Order: sequence, then structure tokens, then C-alpha cells
Amino acid sequence: MDQTTNTQSVGAVEPRKAQFSKPLALKCGATLASYELAYEMYGTLNADKSNAVLVCHALNASHHVAGYYAHAPADVGWWDNIIGPGKPLDTNRFCVIGVNNLGGCFGSTGPSSVNPATRQPWGADFPLVTVEDWVDTQAGLADQLGIARFAAVMGGSLGAMQALSWTIQYPDRIGHALIIACAPNLSAQNIAFNEVARQAIITDPDFHGGHYYSHGTRPTRGLRVARMVGHITYLSDDEMASKFGRQLRHGRLSYTFGVEFEIESYLSHQADKFADYFDANTYLRITKALDYFDPAAAHGGNLSLALEPATASFLVVSFTTDWRFSPERSREIIKALLDNRRAVTYAEIDAPHGHDAFLLDDARYHGLVAAYFNRISAELAA
Amino acid sequence: MDQTTNTQSVGAVEPRKAQFSKPLALKCGATLASYELAYEMYGTLNADKSNAVLVCHALNASHHVAGYYAHAPADVGWWDNIIGPGKPLDTNRFCVIGVNNLGGCFGSTGPSSVNPATRQPWGADFPLVTVEDWVDTQAGLADQLGIARFAAVMGGSLGAMQALSWTIQYPDRIGHALIIACAPNLSAQNIAFNEVARQAIITDPDFHGGHYYSHGTRPTRGLRVARMVGHITYLSDDEMASKFGRQLRHGRLSYTFGVEFEIESYLSHQADKFADYFDANTYLRITKALDYFDPAAAHGGNLSLALEPATASFLVVSFTTDWRFSPERSREIIKALLDNRRAVTYAEIDAPHGHDAFLLDDARYHGLVAAYFNRISAELAA
Repeated sequence: MDQTTNTQSVGAVEPRKAQFSKPLALKCGATLASYELAYEMYGTLNADKSNAVLVCHALNASHHVAGYYAHAPADVGWWDNIIGPGKPLDTNRFCVIGVNNLGGCFGSTGPSSVNPATRQPWGADFPLVTVEDWVDTQAGLADQLGIARFAAVMGGSLGAMQALSWTIQYPDRIGHALIIACAPNLSAQNIAFNEVARQAIITDPDFHGGHYYSHGTRPTRGLRVARMVGHITYLSDDEMASKFGRQLRHGRLSYTFGVEFEIESYLSHQADKFADYFDANTYLRITKALDYFDPAAAHGGNLSLALEPATASFLVVSFTTDWRFSPERSREIIKALLDNRRAVTYAEIDAPHGHDAFLLDDARYHGLVAAYFNRISAELAA
Repeated sequence: MDQTTNTQSVGAVEPRKAQFSKPLALKCGATLASYELAYEMYGTLNADKSNAVLVCHALNASHHVAGYYAHAPADVGWWDNIIGPGKPLDTNRFCVIGVNNLGGCFGSTGPSSVNPATRQPWGADFPLVTVEDWVDTQAGLADQLGIARFAAVMGGSLGAMQALSWTIQYPDRIGHALIIACAPNLSAQNIAFNEVARQAIITDPDFHGGHYYSHGTRPTRGLRVARMVGHITYLSDDEMASKFGRQLRHGRLSYTFGVEFEIESYLSHQADKFADYFDANTYLRITKALDYFDPAAAHGGNLSLALEPATASFLVVSFTTDWRFSPERSREIIKALLDNRRAVTYAEIDAPHGHDAFLLDDARYHGLVAAYFNRISAELAA
């Protein structure tokens, strides 16, 4: 669709920057003296600033959540199918905010930013950041924007972990949490896949211990392998079978190590694209933030205790073929919320797409999100 | 257990070599002028040589199937728990043969062998080999040993693909096929994981296009990543969760990229071990043999047609938590065999271990294999 004539698009958008000069104490023990966050806003903040919805991003996304850039109309926000005028998260009613997470590579302070102490890129010296740190910086942004309380915080996958953490860290500042394709922590298998990706990057000779900016190199080989292994976990086995099966790229086997099967071609293409736009140091840190997230850990593994402070209402959505964060993992969250007698709506969407389903346009899923936001609208109007 | 006093062990064994000087036409189009195969034999071949059982190996194993080496008592055969005097595959009754596949790195001619044409290691010039090629060479070995017909051919995973291919390629030379933890071909997801492993190896600067022997290097970094990603697919999610969970190696997070979780330590250890003993060019070829195997392809995808020539009786075993080759994939084989009215016994073993279950000592699984070999014994005696 030509985005300039898409009436359901928020239209041309512009990224903004917020500066923070108050030192930020990170969970890892380091302190950032100052930092900035790139963000975008769509829709209009109402008079009492009660209609703001924060949308948190997952692994490879950014603050560019919806709309397009005037200079690059094809650069459409990563969740544009769900956010816009008349869409499930309706920008005619809500003011939507997207933030590039701290440590990112799309405008917020991160490993490729200049370290004021050395006037060189941070590289390996940029601290490891956590979901909790991200939520703290997002709360700081809300302060700057005068938003005392979000009507909702919404995310999928790692984005949903941030929404979940919001309910624990700032229970008074969030009305609703939309927790989509999430898990209360990573399983051993999840961590294992992340570690494969990290090892591929770290052992790439072009990585130079994370200081590759000053070597004029990029660990492209490692980043490619990291993306390939990640990508496999985002799709369901069935989806891969129906999309690619054993189809050959050139009609017959070549008996070489070049591309033979369509699935190889697809992965190679995804790997190239990703290695071209994403920063390896950011990727490493995001996988670590995923591994570390575990709100129950501080409560002896008891998620119900961890969620006791949460007062928000919840929409939790999982997808049947998601084997990265299976419905079973969402049900752990549901159980913990019910243990605390919290208001929670849960839906398990029968979708073939695997983990990536949260990004796709599925009528039942989008209908559910639309209905949930209608309910939030009605509450705000009451 | 001290192998030298293990009465159920075949005891100290010695590898043998078989030379082949008749040119071998490979499926890829290349011809090998000559080659040798490393193999081992346990038990005694009876007078009419009707009690031979061929055991085919999977990805990283070898001809060293059972027993131990006198000079290295800890080097126990990879399937020693199922093969030996009084064990399910009883060497008091059967003569068991294990062969290192062509292209291997444990004694059979492979990429690290000397290419007679150049007097240098073959390296990248060693042709790509297939399951069908392996079966041809195994039949050649049987010829040398005077074995007209195997009582059974048995394998797990890729080894089972060889057993399955035996029933199609040499239906008159195989009495029974034991097809354990197998699939009739790789799924797109299976191929994708193999491709990640290959890309990790091929893009390692120490790979030198496969000619690393002459550069005095080894693509250890790539081989490590390849092994890690492979290993994840051999274990079930549940098994990983119960073995490692989110347990920390040093009790607390370090906020570094070093080993933090036990699962990372385990994978790293496995990767080190593997990179130490396995050859990367062999690994690449074995993953390709897996990708290529697809007996139905020559019959428009119809596995029933592909198995029409098979006259063997079958034992097919799958494991409930095997997500690499799930029970569903074994059932495809069962259906094709039933379409051809073949004698087939099928068991789905409820085991928590994932794909690796075929290598483990599970009473129900081993009891089944023992019972099946008792039946073969009875047939031979009749």
C-alpha cells in the first residue's frame, strides 16, 4: 500500500530526542551520567494526559512503531498494522509513544554512541542493561512529557516483559498491561539459543572484543549467524514447512555448499538484511536483557509473590504454535495474576505463524486487542 | 564402570580397515578411484554368515559402536549400552559390524585423507556424499566379508536413514530394519538448523574454503557454534529445563558475556570437546547428507512408492519429546510401510530426553529392541 494515501496510517512521523542529565543507576552496578532516548509520538495527548499508551519494542525493533518517514515512505513502523486511526490501538483516541531502548542502535544512547569520558564510541564499555533499567528510563521519559500514568503499556515478546515489569516497578503509573507472546523468564533452551548467537558474534575476529568501531570493522559473519538462529525460533515448524518445505532454489541439487533449498535462501536474505542495519553490541546486550529478566527470582522463584505489587488490569495473549514462548509460559503469568486476584483477560490464539504471530495481522488477535482498547476508552470516558 | 571387568561388554576391540580399489560412482556425479573404510566387528559370524547385524552411525559417531580400546579403556563405543553379550543386541548370538562412513574423520577415507591425485589432503575437493553412497559402500564391505544378507541393519537418526535406505537399495540383502528416532526426510526447520551450523563453519576465517589443513588452521570457532546449535536440537526443552533450568554457574549474575548460566557452561563444554575431535569438512558433508536424504523425492514425494521395493520387516521406534524427528515423522514411515503391507512393529516411547533418547538406556526402549532381536534369533534358528 502507498503509505502516503493510507487513511489508516498515522502518516508521516518524526523521531524526537529526550535528554537526561540525572545519573542513572543501572541494575548491573554501573551508572550512566547522562543519556538520551529516541522516541516517537502519535495521536494527541488529552488535557489530563490520561490517554497515553507506551509501546515497548522487542529484540530488533525501535521507537518507529507506526507511520512512515517523509524521506523514506517505505520505512513503515514495525507495529503499523495494529496502531493508527481506526486501528485496534486507535490513535484517534490514544496518544501512542514508542521509545528506542537504552543500549539500542536507532538513536538512543548505546554502545555505538560516544562515551563522554573517552570521546570514543563506548563499544565493549557500554554497560549491560536490563528490562528494569529500560522501564526506569521509560518512566523518566513519561516524567519529561508530564505523563503521570499510562492508560496502558503494551508489548510483544521482550516488549511484553517490559510491560509486565512496569506493573511491578510502577504499579501506580500503569492502568493496563497488554502482555503478548510473553514468558515470565527464559527457559534453558531460550538461553541456549541466545548463547549460540552471542558466541557467533563474540568469536568473529572482526568483533575485536566489542571495540570494532575503532577498528573500522563489523562482526558481520557472527551477526548473520546470530540472526539465522534467532529467526528459526520466531517461526513455527509448520509455518516453515508450508512456506518453504524442501523446495529447491534452482530446481535441482548442486552438491555444493551454496544455497540449495529455499529455506537457505530465505535465511541468508534475512541475515544479510539484519547484519546491514543492526549493531552487534546492541544485539549482545538485548539477548542478555532477555536472559536476565526473571521477576520471580527475587522471590525465591515465586511469580505470584513477584506480581503482588501489580494493580494494573491485564490482557495476556499467546499463540498456539509459538514454541519460543509457548502458551504454557503465558499461563504461568495468568496463574500468578489469579493468585493475586488481579483482573486478567487471557486468549490463546490458534495461529500457524509461531512467535512472530504477534507482529502479524490476524483478525481474531487484532479484534481482541481492539475490544480491549475499547474497554480502556470507556473507562477513560467514565 | 571399569570396562575391563564389565562382563556385559564385548571387551577390548580393535578397529579394522577394508580397502576398495573398484571405482565408486557417487550420487553427486564424482567418482572415487579407491577408498578405505574403518570398521569393527563383535561376536562371531556363524557358518552360513546369516547372523550379521550392521549398525549405522549418526552425525558425530563412528565404527566404534561397542566395547573399548585396550590402550584407552574409557573410550567406550557409542552404543555400548545396547550391544554386548546379553544386551538387547546380543553379541553371543549376533555378529555386529560398525562402519565409519565414507567422508568421515575416524579412519575411513574422507576430506582429511590424502588425495592420491595431489598427494595433499582432499579438503574442499572431497566430494559430497549421500546416505545412498554410504549404503553402497557398506554393501561393498559386506561383499568383502562374504555376508550376502544382513540379519538386520539398525540405526538411530541419520543411522536409521541408512537402515531405511538399505531396504530400498538392497531389499534382498536385509532381513530386518530397525529404524530409531528417524524421519523420511528433513523438514525446512531441520535444514535451517543445519544451514546455521554450516554458515558458522564456512564463514570462519580459519576455514580457508575447506583447505584449512594446508593452512595449518582449524575452523574451531565455527565448529563450536555448529555443535552448540546442533546440541540444542538433540535435547528436549523439558530435559534442558530439568537438567539446567535457570541455574547460575557462580551463584550470581556477573553482567558480562562470560558463562553465567549452567546451560551456557554445558554448551561451551560440549562445543570444546567436539571441536577438539571432529573434522569440520566431515561435519559439513554429514549435514548435507542429512539434508539430501529424501527417498520419496524420486517418486513425486510419494514415500509409499519409494518403499515399494522394501521386503524387510521393520521395527520403528520414536520418542515423544524428540522435536528434531518427532513421532509424527516416524508415523509417515509407518503409513508408507502399511500402504505396502509390510511387516512393521511401531513403538512411541514416552521419554523425556528428546532426540538423544535413542542413545540412552531406557528400560522400555531397550526391552523392545531385545524382544525384537529375540524374534530375529528365532527366525534364524528356524
